[in-house]
Amino acid sequence: MFPERLSRLMQLLSRLPGVGEKTAQRYCLYLATEGGELSRQLGEELIAASDSVGPCQCCGNLAEVDGEGQRVCAVCRDHRRDPSLLCVVARVQDLLAIERSGAMRGRYLVLGRLLSPLDGIGPEELPLAALFQRIEHDGVREVIIATPPSVDGEATALLLARELGAANIRVSRIASGVPHGGDLEFADQITLGRAIDGRRAMGR
Amino acid sequence: MFPERLSRLMQLLSRLPGVGEKTAQRYCLYLATEGGELSRQLGEELIAASDSVGPCQCCGNLAEVDGEGQRVCAVCRDHRRDPSLLCVVARVQDLLAIERSGAMRGRYLVLGRLLSPLDGIGPEELPLAALFQRIEHDGVREVIIATPPSVDGEATALLLARELGAANIRVSRIASGVPHGGDLEFADQITLGRAIDGRRAMGR
Repeated sequence: MFPERLSRLMQLLSRLPGVGEKTAQRYCLYLATEGGELSRQLGEELIAASDSVGPCQCCGNLAEVDGEGQRVCAVCRDHRRDPSLLCVVARVQDLLAIERSGAMRGRYLVLGRLLSPLDGIGPEELPLAALFQRIEHDGVREVIIATPPSVDGEATALLLARELGAANIRVSRIASGVPHGGDLEFADQITLGRAIDGRRAMGR
Repeated sequence: MFPERLSRLMQLLSRLPGVGEKTAQRYCLYLATEGGELSRQLGEELIAASDSVGPCQCCGNLAEVDGEGQRVCAVCRDHRRDPSLLCVVARVQDLLAIERSGAMRGRYLVLGRLLSPLDGIGPEELPLAALFQRIEHDGVREVIIATPPSVDGEATALLLARELGAANIRVSRIASGVPHGGDLEFADQITLGRAIDGRRAMGR
């Protein structure tokens, strides 16, 4: 019923996150009927991005190849950043979220994965060598561990803290607790427990 | 914060129907981090589709160019179809929906638009010449008007019925009423009115 070419396109589109058969068909029909030049433009941009965009060679953030064939991201190129403060995150998405908050004045390292015994990801799969190399090269004085407050994220944080502590490097963990604007009544038990454990002194 | 190339890609992706800034960013990050070869494959397929897919030269359905440079859709190539029965629809999506029902054994004509005085679309914007040419060429004996039961769809149906009636061609309109599995209690007044006006005799 569908031209074969569009069926193939639909199949590829349905590999995007959250896109099922119905949505892929909707995109496909739009591109083939009303989209005009969008299909070609999108195609060319996707190929160009696939050629030039990839992980930053310093930190793993997304970056574009420059004229000299180097791929360094905007954060690593920013010389106003404090190189002695290093924030370790699991994914590029987490780095972008922290950047949006504007609260981080140091640099980053993207792990790309978390410890996950169930998925067969052990300590040797984490880029620990790159982390220590980075610490030595940049003269890092504090590592902030910003892995997510999940089972795998906590396990990764514990492992990193142990390894870094053994090497006498200051380590901190981002706070976990009730989110801003959140209602205590609807917070789950673990979050509330963490909010109380992580309480901070106020006043005198 | 984002490589420029990805910002451009994000902007193009957000032109897809139902895709906002957040979703475009999600697709973009997926393609740039976990997507692997998907970005390139999708790019190549989009360009190929943009080169070879377009409206069928007979009916306006989606079709792919064949070896001889002809662009004829699967319905028009199917010789088991009854050429004397022609179903007029507004959009390719409507054609596909009717095909899925399996209830249409004739062929189609996709109008591509509906009468819409508010949007400045008058009778001269409708492909009436193509419709009459098709009727003569294929020996059409009945035209089924399957424009949607909306204001513009009804206006278009009325215009087509008048023009075709004046040329002594049998015209019918798809039934409008309570949908299968629908609850009368929750049907709107216009739908119920149509269901009663369009009632059919039962029994003897």
